[in-house]
Formats: sequence, structure tokens, C-alpha cells
Amino acid sequence: MRQSKLFYKTQKILSEKIEVISHQLLLRGGFIDQLASGIYNLLPLGFLVHKKIEKIIREEMIKIGAQEVFLPALHPKSIWQTTGRWETMDALFKLKDRHKKNFALGPTHEEVIVQIVKRRVQSWKDLPIYLFQIQTKFRNEIRFFGGLLRAREFVMKDLYSFHSTQEDFEKYYKKVISTYFRIFKRCGIKTKLVEASAAGFTKGFSHEFQAITSVGEDTIFYCSSCDFAQNKEIAEVKEGDICPKCKKGKIIKERGIEVGNIFPLGTTYSKKLNAYFIDKDGKKKFIIMGCYGIGLGRLMATIVELNHDKNGIIWPKEVAPFLIHLIPVEIRDKKVKNGAEKIYQNLQKNSYEVLYDDRKDASPGEKFVESDLLGIPIRVVISKKTLKNNEVEIKERAKKKAQLVKIKKLQEFLKKYV
Amino acid sequence: MRQSKLFYKTQKILSEKIEVISHQLLLRGGFIDQLASGIYNLLPLGFLVHKKIEKIIREEMIKIGAQEVFLPALHPKSIWQTTGRWETMDALFKLKDRHKKNFALGPTHEEVIVQIVKRRVQSWKDLPIYLFQIQTKFRNEIRFFGGLLRAREFVMKDLYSFHSTQEDFEKYYKKVISTYFRIFKRCGIKTKLVEASAAGFTKGFSHEFQAITSVGEDTIFYCSSCDFAQNKEIAEVKEGDICPKCKKGKIIKERGIEVGNIFPLGTTYSKKLNAYFIDKDGKKKFIIMGCYGIGLGRLMATIVELNHDKNGIIWPKEVAPFLIHLIPVEIRDKKVKNGAEKIYQNLQKNSYEVLYDDRKDASPGEKFVESDLLGIPIRVVISKKTLKNNEVEIKERAKKKAQLVKIKKLQEFLKKYV
Repeated sequence: MRQSKLFYKTQKILSEKIEVISHQLLLRGGFIDQLASGIYNLLPLGFLVHKKIEKIIREEMIKIGAQEVFLPALHPKSIWQTTGRWETMDALFKLKDRHKKNFALGPTHEEVIVQIVKRRVQSWKDLPIYLFQIQTKFRNEIRFFGGLLRAREFVMKDLYSFHSTQEDFEKYYKKVISTYFRIFKRCGIKTKLVEASAAGFTKGFSHEFQAITSVGEDTIFYCSSCDFAQNKEIAEVKEGDICPKCKKGKIIKERGIEVGNIFPLGTTYSKKLNAYFIDKDGKKKFIIMGCYGIGLGRLMATIVELNHDKNGIIWPKEVAPFLIHLIPVEIRDKKVKNGAEKIYQNLQKNSYEVLYDDRKDASPGEKFVESDLLGIPIRVVISKKTLKNNEVEIKERAKKKAQLVKIKKLQEFLKKYV
Repeated sequence: MRQSKLFYKTQKILSEKIEVISHQLLLRGGFIDQLASGIYNLLPLGFLVHKKIEKIIREEMIKIGAQEVFLPALHPKSIWQTTGRWETMDALFKLKDRHKKNFALGPTHEEVIVQIVKRRVQSWKDLPIYLFQIQTKFRNEIRFFGGLLRAREFVMKDLYSFHSTQEDFEKYYKKVISTYFRIFKRCGIKTKLVEASAAGFTKGFSHEFQAITSVGEDTIFYCSSCDFAQNKEIAEVKEGDICPKCKKGKIIKERGIEVGNIFPLGTTYSKKLNAYFIDKDGKKKFIIMGCYGIGLGRLMATIVELNHDKNGIIWPKEVAPFLIHLIPVEIRDKKVKNGAEKIYQNLQKNSYEVLYDDRKDASPGEKFVESDLLGIPIRVVISKKTLKNNEVEIKERAKKKAQLVKIKKLQEFLKKYV
């Protein structure tokens, strides 16, 4: 894409009120834009990143046999009454249609999906079922915070699984854990699997995937040596304790952003919504359920939170809006311009995602500052000087050193980044 | 995909109240499911088709230089007051957040997108701009009808263009017309470009893309010989008249479904929202706008409306949930099963989208009836009889005749459908 055509505008300074760094950088880089408190527009650069995250999640969901659906945001009141959540869920946006019928805007889809599944399940042979969607959620929060970190409207991946036995559920639950780790790894962030409250659904715990960072809203306690980790709300340890699991490590206290959560729902919803199956023994049993969420916007903000420096964002390769930022210095020089155009055409032909800074009215200094802010992983610079030796200068955003590469060998050199 | 794993369930008969054939077939085939009046779940099969339509539209939008954004559904009241539509637009769903602030659920996004664009446009050099999104719209309709044909919540592609001159706008408007024809063609439907009311935006007309079918809500008059076509609301001709444009053809009256519309907005919104630029002559001018919509659900239903027979849907290739329906007859026979498995693996390896009817508990008759209902374009049947000659039977859903093809030559034979 030619940068002169890209719809974006970076900003140098923002109001000091915007304290969270990912919020700052996403606004400054022109990735997002605020429409109202806790409600954001995804602009072209932001949409490209969001789409990459969506692609990763979709691929990983399909790998574990999940099938994609797309469910409405408008839910009739009756279905939320069945589970009692019409009254108890504070974050429910409520509205009426012109016939005075009541609706909620879906903050989650257990009610809707159980209704769909129960109509299509008769016997144990119809189970398990794994359904997911990537769709907009609405939450009437008291407090919204950190831009995309806690918004009132956001795109979420929600997966629901339906099982005939507890064993089968547990097997899948573990599969989802591995899948989530893989998703977050591909997105360039490390996460910890943290035990949290099951919110009364089952006797055990639910699990959160926490990214450790000081801007996180959650407090977690984890072991320096083994994988023990608990959310503050259920933790029975304090900082400095010896780990109750491995008896070796020490307990560390940190803040975290919950980028994913997985819930054993047991039969809570299937009982309330009367979703059952006939088991091998001929008996009617309630379906055992799990639900598994990832908020895409929050994940995008967390990626920035964990991948930036003082100059801007450092997008991990798989979620970057473009892989390569091609910057000609002295673009008014004919040789430089022709050289850049040729490289741009060649890279495009070979399916590289390139942002080509073809602007004539920006100085080299401005281009580099902006390039650091936007955070595209690989910068390819072409100038009079590099052209003398038929070279370009390549610098990874995450590294300090640049290196010179012969233009002839550029394609081959770039292969390692694909 | 193995059919035994696919989350779907077909139905033989539906309530007679469901009069529209596309509505019937999409429900019966398990593509969609009703959550409330005018509000539908997209189930896995329906989602696959929807996604294909989305892909076609996105590809065509990118070809005409449009950049993708994703805008919220929750719009603050203030922005709808600026254009006066908070009071005048009847189809606006309205709600309050917990702080008693008023919001609308976006039925369209002119207000939001103009606000985004105006902050980033200073001079004529910043124009033109083309932005689109594929996102959920909400319309508080009095009447909803025909399943996905007129829903209260639906996914829409909305494109907005911003120009410094009328000439530039008109050039792009024509480009969008060609693009729309191409989109509908790829989706397997013929459309007519019909003049309609500009709803007061400009002096001229707006244009609708109408698919001719008796279930359509619109009445249109068109020429039997040239491209003259007008919506009833503005038509100054009647059935049987001589065409006022070519003076040769006769005027025909038909019903149509509006699958797309394009609007010259002029400066209506830019004036109300104060969106201007500094022109070459140093003068402040209002931005000239166009908007261009396609409802994905309505398009999906229209495709069915125009592509079915008495046995079910006949999906056009590019929007079909799968390209190939692989059906083993006598699947309990080891040779048939092994043969089918092998073909399935091979087709998948070569990236064909195959639904493989591996169910053991369905009779051949049931399989074929269901296959006709689901409407996958190419049916590949393997049986004891075909295996004797190392063959499979291939039948296109749209054609009556089947033909035998050597299994060895299957891949080569299928190439013509890709």
C-alpha cells in the first residue's frame, strides 16, 4: 500500500489524561479513534491488526474442531429471564423495539447458543459440539478504561462446548488451554494460566490467561518456579510465601491483564434452559458445557502494552498491519524513486505486505519518527548512498542495528521473516 | 468436512406461514435459525455462505481502492442530533447507558464516518477518500419479512466516498456501479440498475440494484430493449408504454428485491457536520459524498430466491458452503468406504472444499434428498457399481444429467469448476 493513499494521520502529543501507553500509542498512530467513552472506531491501520488477530484465532479454533456461527446482538428479554440474568446482570444494555418489546444487547451468548444446540441434540451421539463466533459484544460497564483494554462495545471470540461426560469436557478444556497459549504466542505475548473463581458455576476453578503488566486491572500471585498462579480473589497465598504446589518457589505478586478466560459451566445453563440428551443408558441427562472467551480489542491493546519502546509500537510479525515498511530517503531523486518503485512492485508481486512511504512532502526525519511510531516489523530504507552499492538498509523495529543487503538478494533475505 | 461432524439438522416441512421460498429453504437446510421476529442466527452452513459473500465484496472493494474500517454500533445521541436524524429516523433503536446517556444503534454510519474523515482532511490533496466496513446494522422496522430479506439486525457492507469535485465523485460513482454488477454476478444473480428517488439529497436520482423476482417488495418499470429502469416511486411510465429512452422497447412491470443501493449524497452531510476542505483556489468548500450499501443477509436470501428448484437450493459456485458433496452409497461396504475416504483425503490435500457424507445411519435416498436441499454445486457419488470400473458418478446440482469419471482422472476433471 502506498502511504500517500493510506487513510491515517499520526499525532505527536495527546492529552495527559490518557495514561495507558497502549491507548496513547494506538490513538497517536491512527489505529483507533474514540467515538464516545469506552467506544472506539477501528481505522484502517487498526482494522488490519484486528483482522490479523481474528485470522489467528479462527485458524486455531478450526484446528480444534470448532465450527463458526454468527449470532445476533439483539436478544429477546424472555431468553434472559429463563436464566435469571435479565435481573442479575448489571452490564446488560436494555432497550425496546417499536412494538414495546424488550431486548438486551448480548454481552455474552450462553442463552442464545444453548437454545440453538438443544433443538438439535437428542442422543449422546449428537455430542460433543463445539461452536464459536467472532462478533460484537456490548457491556454497560460502570467504568471503562485504557482505550481498548476495557470498552463497552468490543469484538469477542466466544467458543462454547457441549459434552455428554465430564471426562470428555475435561479433555476438551485442556485442548483449549493449549490452543489459547498458542494463540497468545502467535500474537507475540506471554501469558500465565491463572486460577480464578468459577463464579458459582462448578465446584472447581475457572481459568484466566493473564499477561503480566503494571497497567493490568487484576492482581495475581504466582510461583517463581512452577506453574502455580491464582487470581487475588481466590488466592490463599501472599507475596513471599513458599509455593504451596512445588514447595520450592516463592510467591510473586504482579498485576495482569486478563486476555482470555475459560469457564467450566457444568450443567448450570443446560438445567435452566432444559438442554438435555438421552445417554447410552437410556437416561435423560443435562448437557455439560464449557465457555471460552477472548476479547480481540483487549488483546490488541495488550500486544501493544507488551511490545513497544519510547518511540512507538513494535508489532509482532503475525499481527503487524504490514510486514515491511519501505522508505525511500530523498524520494525526489529520480534514481531513488525508481529504485523504490521497483522494489515495491517486486515485493508486492511476491505477496509481501508492504507499506511504501511514497510521500514527497515528508522529510526523512519525519518518516523515520512515524515509522517507529507505527511499529512495522521490518524497515527497508533506500537512499542515494545505499544505491551506490546497489544495496538497501534493513532494520528490524525490535533491534538497534541495521544491515546492508544487496537489492538482488533482498527477496531471499526477507524469506526468513515470512 | 465430515458430515457426521457438521452441526446442522435439516427439516422436511415447515409452518405454512413461511411463504417466501428462500426463507423456507434456508431454515429447512439448517443455514439459519430464528431467534426473534426479524432476528436470525447464522448456523455453520449459513455462516460459510455469508463468509463467501463477504470475501467477494471485500475483494471488489479493495480493487476500487477502498480501505476497510470497523465502526461501533453504539452512537451517542449528540451526533445524530447534528444531522437532525435523532428525531426524523423512525427506524432508530434508542437506548440509555447506566449513566442515563442516550445512544442509538447505528442503522447506517454517515454521521460517524463524516466525523472521522473531517478531522483528517484539510486540503483538496487529502481527497478523495474511500472507506468501507462490513458490520452489523440495526433497524427498528415496523415490518420484517421473508427471513433474511428484511431483518431488524443484519450485516451490511457500507462504503462512503469523499471528493473535492463533482466530476471526481461521478467518476467513482460509475466505478462502483461496475463493481456492484461484478459482485452480484460473482454471487450468481442478475441485477438491473434502477433509478430511484434521491431522498432529497441531490437533484438527481439514486440507484438501486434490483433482482427481478415476484417476492420482491419493490415494483420496477424497465425497458424490454435498453437499460432504462425506474422504481415505481419515481416512474413516469406505465406497463406497455414505449420506452422514453430508446423509443423502441416496451415498458415491463416487475417486482424486485433491492440488493444494493448507491446514493449521491452531495454536500448534505458535510454541511450539517461541517466537513470541509481548502480547495486549490484557497477557498473553504464542503466535501462531496457518496454512499453505497449492500446487505449481506438479503443478498444471501436473494441468491436462493433466484437459484433453487423444487428440491432445494442450487448454490452458485463462488458462494456455495462447499464446492463438492462427496456421497458414498453403501458406506458400510468396506471397499466403498475406503474408496470414499481416499477421494476425500486427496481432494482435501488439493484444497477442494468438500462435504463428505460419512454418515452410516442415513440411507442413500435420504442422503440424496438432503444433498439436493443443501445445494452444493457438484455431487460426487461412489458406490459398489461405480467402483467396479474404478469410477465415480459426477452430477452438477444445476443439471439433470450425471456422468461417470475415472477416479484417477477426478482431480483433472474437477479443475474446470475451480
